[in-house]
Amino acid sequence: MSFDRLQRLILERKNPSVAGLDPRLEYVPEELRSRCIGEYGATLRGAAEAVFAFNAGLLDALTDIVPAVKLQSAFYERLGVPGMDVLERTIRLARELGFYVIGDMKRGDVGSTAEAYSDAYLGSVEVEGSLWEPFPCDCLTVNAYLGSDGLRPFLKTCLERDRSVFALVKTSNPSSGELQDRALSDGPVYAAVGRLLEELGAGAEGEFGFTPLGAVAGATHPTQLADIRETLKRTFLLVPGYGAQGGRAEDVACAFIEGGLGAVVNSSRGIICAWQKNGGDYRTAARDAAAAMREDLARFIKM
Amino acid sequence: MSFDRLQRLILERKNPSVAGLDPRLEYVPEELRSRCIGEYGATLRGAAEAVFAFNAGLLDALTDIVPAVKLQSAFYERLGVPGMDVLERTIRLARELGFYVIGDMKRGDVGSTAEAYSDAYLGSVEVEGSLWEPFPCDCLTVNAYLGSDGLRPFLKTCLERDRSVFALVKTSNPSSGELQDRALSDGPVYAAVGRLLEELGAGAEGEFGFTPLGAVAGATHPTQLADIRETLKRTFLLVPGYGAQGGRAEDVACAFIEGGLGAVVNSSRGIICAWQKNGGDYRTAARDAAAAMREDLARFIKM
Repeated sequence: MSFDRLQRLILERKNPSVAGLDPRLEYVPEELRSRCIGEYGATLRGAAEAVFAFNAGLLDALTDIVPAVKLQSAFYERLGVPGMDVLERTIRLARELGFYVIGDMKRGDVGSTAEAYSDAYLGSVEVEGSLWEPFPCDCLTVNAYLGSDGLRPFLKTCLERDRSVFALVKTSNPSSGELQDRALSDGPVYAAVGRLLEELGAGAEGEFGFTPLGAVAGATHPTQLADIRETLKRTFLLVPGYGAQGGRAEDVACAFIEGGLGAVVNSSRGIICAWQKNGGDYRTAARDAAAAMREDLARFIKM
Repeated sequence: MSFDRLQRLILERKNPSVAGLDPRLEYVPEELRSRCIGEYGATLRGAAEAVFAFNAGLLDALTDIVPAVKLQSAFYERLGVPGMDVLERTIRLARELGFYVIGDMKRGDVGSTAEAYSDAYLGSVEVEGSLWEPFPCDCLTVNAYLGSDGLRPFLKTCLERDRSVFALVKTSNPSSGELQDRALSDGPVYAAVGRLLEELGAGAEGEFGFTPLGAVAGATHPTQLADIRETLKRTFLLVPGYGAQGGRAEDVACAFIEGGLGAVVNSSRGIICAWQKNGGDYRTAARDAAAAMREDLARFIKM
């Protein structure tokens, strides 16, 4: 089961964290930028190639420390077709290097449209008898506002192809409560989404007890995070908001169950932009920042 | 204002409808498919080029009948990088031909990530002093589950660049009520999302009285659709679910205000797959189906 693979990688590396590859051009060191812009011009292609070179260096540096990477699709889509090309190449390279790859696409649609998204990121596409995998992630973030119609097509692919998803339950942004914390008769909106995930995923638990339908629950709202961990026992959690967004190791500890199981904490800027804060080579800086994050988490999460 | 342009096109064509270009390979006539697969192989490129040829024929056939087209991103993403290339080319061709172009991406994220999506589909991207427009739509569908943090970056681009968005309020799928119809203290969840849109958009109304933050409200739930029209007077509506999904002209009539203003009804398969049902050339079939839909709507919507 897909989350079993993630859990095993986490235990092997003793590191329940995921590095967010959310590359803005200004995060890329000048040397890489000028080389790629020099070769391809001040174009989307030039920017995208600079991002790929940056990603390749980061992946190489993080390979035996961090078990998983998360690619924020927006920063690739922003670079147009060349950006999508670099998204695909980064996914393939990360998988070759042994990372568990989470596509942070937050896609949400229904029926044949959800199937099409599922084919694109978790499944395969047949063209006149030939099979292709457009953007082959291990796991995809999705939006559950459309209800179970929007989740079932993803679940189907997860079961068929050993993949998983994280659905947005309680996001890390300041205004997430405007809708997600509103009270229904049986609890807040985010809890209703969480229950839907556990209902749909029931019976598909893997070795560690988690269904293929995980949940996003932000570090910046520790009360709700603890509530989600307490009530959704079969749900693997993706926890954004650590570091640059203000979430601390003591805030995310409640996302884990005994033995450091059941959650993974994301850091993006804290790792990929470490060179801007600490100086030196960006790869060494990223590696050091990832190792420091691992130590920081280990103070509260024992595995 | 962006929705003023859409409204004027609707009044000129006397047709409040949008054709959904949601091309699956099986919708493409055999002749186009075999030509493109012959040239590019049974690859994602071959499939994508067949889709582009199909789209180009449809756009040419619909140009003076239908005011707007909506591109469902999932069907392009499913074809990988070549699919994204065809998405971009279809957007550019549709705009050249005078269509109002709605990107049905349902993106939803916050802060700098929402800005990146907004740059990608509504705005522009600077690379070392050069400006690029990756996927230049007039309007984008978005998901508001993350609250106002997820809407403000899009609104900012809408105001700066004369663009607009449709946020998901009440979707057309059967299970949409699981979350969207749940009762809060002041009404259902979908109504809370709707109010958030009107609050954020207040003061930015155009000539016809609508803010740049429109709402998606499905034809398949006419009671909720009428409620949304009644309570959100400054909100332009995108109404999916007509035709193949079961929504009828009498069901969508309540989405409009006096004079046939304030809404646009989507049909995808009913137009682009008309050739499979009615025979003949796919362009003629699509044109006839679009004209028939215009007549059907005109029985209930007077403009």
